[in-house]
Amino acid sequence: MTTTVGFVGLGAMGAPMAARLAATGRTVQGYDPFAPATPTGVRRVDTARDAAAGAEVVVLMVATPEQARDALGGETGVLRSLQQGAVVLVTATVGPDAVTALAGEVAAAGGELVDAPVSGGVVRAADGELTLMVSGSPAAIDRTRGVIDALGGTVFVLTDTAGDGQRMKLVNQLLAGVHIAVAGEALAYARALGIDPARAFEVVSSGAAASFMLDDRGRRMVAEAFDEPRSAVDIFVKDLSLVTGAARFPLPIAEAALDRFRAASAAGLGRKDDSAVITTYESYHREDNS
Amino acid sequence: MTTTVGFVGLGAMGAPMAARLAATGRTVQGYDPFAPATPTGVRRVDTARDAAAGAEVVVLMVATPEQARDALGGETGVLRSLQQGAVVLVTATVGPDAVTALAGEVAAAGGELVDAPVSGGVVRAADGELTLMVSGSPAAIDRTRGVIDALGGTVFVLTDTAGDGQRMKLVNQLLAGVHIAVAGEALAYARALGIDPARAFEVVSSGAAASFMLDDRGRRMVAEAFDEPRSAVDIFVKDLSLVTGAARFPLPIAEAALDRFRAASAAGLGRKDDSAVITTYESYHREDNS
Repeated sequence: MTTTVGFVGLGAMGAPMAARLAATGRTVQGYDPFAPATPTGVRRVDTARDAAAGAEVVVLMVATPEQARDALGGETGVLRSLQQGAVVLVTATVGPDAVTALAGEVAAAGGELVDAPVSGGVVRAADGELTLMVSGSPAAIDRTRGVIDALGGTVFVLTDTAGDGQRMKLVNQLLAGVHIAVAGEALAYARALGIDPARAFEVVSSGAAASFMLDDRGRRMVAEAFDEPRSAVDIFVKDLSLVTGAARFPLPIAEAALDRFRAASAAGLGRKDDSAVITTYESYHREDNS
Repeated sequence: MTTTVGFVGLGAMGAPMAARLAATGRTVQGYDPFAPATPTGVRRVDTARDAAAGAEVVVLMVATPEQARDALGGETGVLRSLQQGAVVLVTATVGPDAVTALAGEVAAAGGELVDAPVSGGVVRAADGELTLMVSGSPAAIDRTRGVIDALGGTVFVLTDTAGDGQRMKLVNQLLAGVHIAVAGEALAYARALGIDPARAFEVVSSGAAASFMLDDRGRRMVAEAFDEPRSAVDIFVKDLSLVTGAARFPLPIAEAALDRFRAASAAGLGRKDDSAVITTYESYHREDNS
């Protein structure tokens, strides 16, 4: 079993993932420049370099491609202390281009990168029941299999090319992001037609209009519970930007959804729960203004 | 129990619904100018007027608002023979404006209209397991309750205003139509990124990206099974046009999905299965052209 894990990024998803790894008996060296709380069982360190020191596996659960590059490179980055043969496990959604570039840097430093973006949310993260979309060399996946299985309830091993995990995650995020935004569009539309959104949610959420995201985010839209984000608006600004950026042809529906998340972010809601995307529809405010 | 039912519209959904009513022991007088086959147990008649003659309930399961108006009015329409106190049950999706207008015509002829659009597809139609979104006067709903319950496994009684059933159905169709189109967008995107669409479907369809429509239509997209339509492309051209037509503010995601269905119809696919919307994406053809 991998006994020492470096963990960079202790945010909404990273914190419960790091705590989960600690709970499985591993030594977890956690680094995050901003996170206010240290997850249970995690030893907090001051730099990404310190997180990677002596670790067989270093998990990157940062928010953006830029943060991933910063965490690896520079004076206090992971690559300064990475052990020969250690694996950098990228569980963040940073897109295929970033992962491909990072894989080259990790290899040049004597390690290997395994691409393993996750899906499932914070509750499944804490329970080790995430879905992981894994790509990388079979040998590197084998060396990090214990950590992967501690995090994931469902593990798809896709190809031996880092970047393919990210590509699959982008397919997932295209659907997930559109399903969230259109849940907002439909419930705002219901209100404009004089239908109580709570009743619309009740009637349509179990039939042919059902989606995981309608069920999950629709409840928060109806309750107008935006202030304790499970996943923030700006995550989907980033993820749908990665989706459209990796496409070589128009994605009109994903682009329309991205516009909604951007509008929410521009309205100052970037750190609110992503269900707040419903507030970008005119009808959402109609009652208040009448 | 209602013993004689008029049934106008014996298409993909109407035929199994009419057969279901006949199987529950009712006399069903069915009319459709085009349908090639007569559903089991249904007595085929030559006009909508003949379908309504002597019937306590007349079901309208036509495809468009224009067909609904034609079926009621004119020399051979339902209103020429409608019994006093009979109920016209509109199970078609024709939009709130059309139903409101039709309700006035039916009332002027001495009957009552109950608005009861359905969701669920042909299999549930045959089994009497549709979802019905019902609005109308309590007395009229009461008089047609036996027919409603014979058709529906899930019945939502919404308000006493005909049109509100249609409004709820449009909320449902906004979501359903977008979910179908974005399933096509996501699987076409997967292919463009070098991912086998069948593998993408397997990986993403059970997690946070899950939807009823991805599960249902995604299978047909992967199999490229477009030639035996369960629901045709042109149905969603019509339904999403009704959705956007009833809105008083922009619905950018629904409009993007409507554009996809229109593009499919313009490409000659209007009568194909609506999963054929995937073929409007450039990447769908990429392998063939390379």
